[in-house]
Amino acid sequence: MSKKAGAARRDRKQIGEKLAGLAESVVEAARKRQDPTVRIPLRTLSNARFNKARRIIEMGDAKQDRRFFNLGMAKSFMQTLLVASGCKVLIDEDKTASIRQIYYRLKHTIAGTNEKTFNDQSESDPILEDLEVAINALREELHVFADSRGSIAGNLTVVSKGDTIDLRRMGAGGMAIPSIVEPDVFEFRKCDARFVLHVEKGTVWQRFNEDKFWKEHNCILTHGGGQPPRGVRRLLHRMHNELKLPLYCLLDNDPWGYYIYSVIKQGSINLAFESQRMAVPDAVFIGVRSGDFEEFGLTDDVKIDIDEKDIKRAKQILNYPWFEGKKEWKKEIELMLKHGFKMEVESLLTKGISFVTETYVPQKLKDKKAWLD
Amino acid sequence: MSKKAGAARRDRKQIGEKLAGLAESVVEAARKRQDPTVRIPLRTLSNARFNKARRIIEMGDAKQDRRFFNLGMAKSFMQTLLVASGCKVLIDEDKTASIRQIYYRLKHTIAGTNEKTFNDQSESDPILEDLEVAINALREELHVFADSRGSIAGNLTVVSKGDTIDLRRMGAGGMAIPSIVEPDVFEFRKCDARFVLHVEKGTVWQRFNEDKFWKEHNCILTHGGGQPPRGVRRLLHRMHNELKLPLYCLLDNDPWGYYIYSVIKQGSINLAFESQRMAVPDAVFIGVRSGDFEEFGLTDDVKIDIDEKDIKRAKQILNYPWFEGKKEWKKEIELMLKHGFKMEVESLLTKGISFVTETYVPQKLKDKKAWLD
Repeated sequence: MSKKAGAARRDRKQIGEKLAGLAESVVEAARKRQDPTVRIPLRTLSNARFNKARRIIEMGDAKQDRRFFNLGMAKSFMQTLLVASGCKVLIDEDKTASIRQIYYRLKHTIAGTNEKTFNDQSESDPILEDLEVAINALREELHVFADSRGSIAGNLTVVSKGDTIDLRRMGAGGMAIPSIVEPDVFEFRKCDARFVLHVEKGTVWQRFNEDKFWKEHNCILTHGGGQPPRGVRRLLHRMHNELKLPLYCLLDNDPWGYYIYSVIKQGSINLAFESQRMAVPDAVFIGVRSGDFEEFGLTDDVKIDIDEKDIKRAKQILNYPWFEGKKEWKKEIELMLKHGFKMEVESLLTKGISFVTETYVPQKLKDKKAWLD
Repeated sequence: MSKKAGAARRDRKQIGEKLAGLAESVVEAARKRQDPTVRIPLRTLSNARFNKARRIIEMGDAKQDRRFFNLGMAKSFMQTLLVASGCKVLIDEDKTASIRQIYYRLKHTIAGTNEKTFNDQSESDPILEDLEVAINALREELHVFADSRGSIAGNLTVVSKGDTIDLRRMGAGGMAIPSIVEPDVFEFRKCDARFVLHVEKGTVWQRFNEDKFWKEHNCILTHGGGQPPRGVRRLLHRMHNELKLPLYCLLDNDPWGYYIYSVIKQGSINLAFESQRMAVPDAVFIGVRSGDFEEFGLTDDVKIDIDEKDIKRAKQILNYPWFEGKKEWKKEIELMLKHGFKMEVESLLTKGISFVTETYVPQKLKDKKAWLD
């Protein structure tokens, strides 16, 4: 067992102990004839803030007590313990489950009543998030997975569930990025890569993979099928921090692309508590930029008119707190609005099938001044 | 080079020649001062029919001539040749492109006019389909790919783009199924598997992969992320026909699950011309079946009430022509309607985390009488 895997296994034991501790505190309170209580940090907008020093969106300190002897809280209190107990079983049995599988697994009629533990998944999902923040563990550490999206290929070997996988020899499809990429089930081995290139969509990834971009430029190539799911973000975070690889993002020149970048870089407001283990504040946006239209002599064929929704969304993003003081980004978004059009990465194919892999990105990688932080 | 790869390369040459032939016939007509014409089979509902002997949805014989000297057809005639020429370049350069990349690649302003070759992708997509039927080639043979979804793992080795990939050692994520799995870029090698199990969703696939189902039952495990994309369907077709493996489908007990099954088995009406190289008429539906509720002693927790939309969709499917004379399927769908509820594969977790992999599917595989054809 490698040092890292050993540490990871200790981590897993810790998570199990935290869950057991939660249960013990309840038992203890009952013994003392006190009101059993679980203290849960508030996952509200008002309790999320941008930490300027760490450059990530973080959760504040506000907490709420969830009490058993409170008519309005008794059900959610019980649900919290039920989800905790379900996760403990998963960890003990070394199995994982989707959030939908967790819901089905824990759903039942409470004996002697017509009351269901959960009426539908919209009740169990937020309880799981409560549990994550209550014991400060990622969902993946609780052995719960989301649907996976995204692929990876490049100069890296990994060990996933005991299988050694050479990401240099993955053919046309790449390895499907698993939902859970915690160190105990997804270890890094030999890595020669100098950086990670993350692209927005699978079709763009295929262009780069086919043109052997990662081989020529000695990197790792990932995509997240649009907004990257948790597994992809966690993997980007781990590659950046553990393998010390810079992360370059190639995204569409539109509000959706800006938003994807902001989530990769700073985290999201909804899931502020995860930022510290998912966000990559050092990520760099290398394109597509509004100025590329002139710089690369693109034609009208690349233009997609922006609509009211784009304008509204762009203005919202301009007001994000992480964005304060970033003059270059402000200029960038304002130029897009002034142009009145947006551009996709794929529109670069108007200049040639492999223009994006052979000219555009190599030039962007060299020209650090053109990067957006 | 293996025999198969050699044959595949000849196929590719043939496709290139067909495209060149299309162009030559136009040149020839111009030389003879005749109206250049491309003959295109009609991709309409009225020209699709269910072939009872072959058990697939096929395109009929109706064709339409697309003429250059016809004001209403001149633009689509030109677009057809443009797409053909774009695909010829892809084949010659041994590159592939997405349908969106094709659109951008071929979009330009016609010299001396303000007219664009294509105003948006909704113009180039149907032209590509016209071309597929006109020269009787799959989109993938024209080097055009769709966005990919779906994963594969199991007792099979494949060669993708020169990389030998052991699908027995793919860790938690599996291999992402590429969009293009034609024999020249995706070859089968060592296969010990006895069958293919196709499940609907990635989360169910993860349950089976984690429980090492494919190892224990000596099979290949695939999913298509819902309605399987073309690459997944083509791969299922090839594994069934070339590796002689039975195909078992595990899908939700709802109209969407029925529809996915019908597309895997008989093809779809929209893309009737592809059925012969995508459909698997011998595919078998092993579950989830309405009768499972009683048979496996499931509780109310698995029930999801059906709504008007489900009822309407189920009745449509009952009227599909491929469905005529299939009494068992008729009973199946009517029982779902009578029950008034639908069930997902994941609901089987109410019986235990691994009930679906350890009990349900093994029992279904043994009990051939419970299969739906």
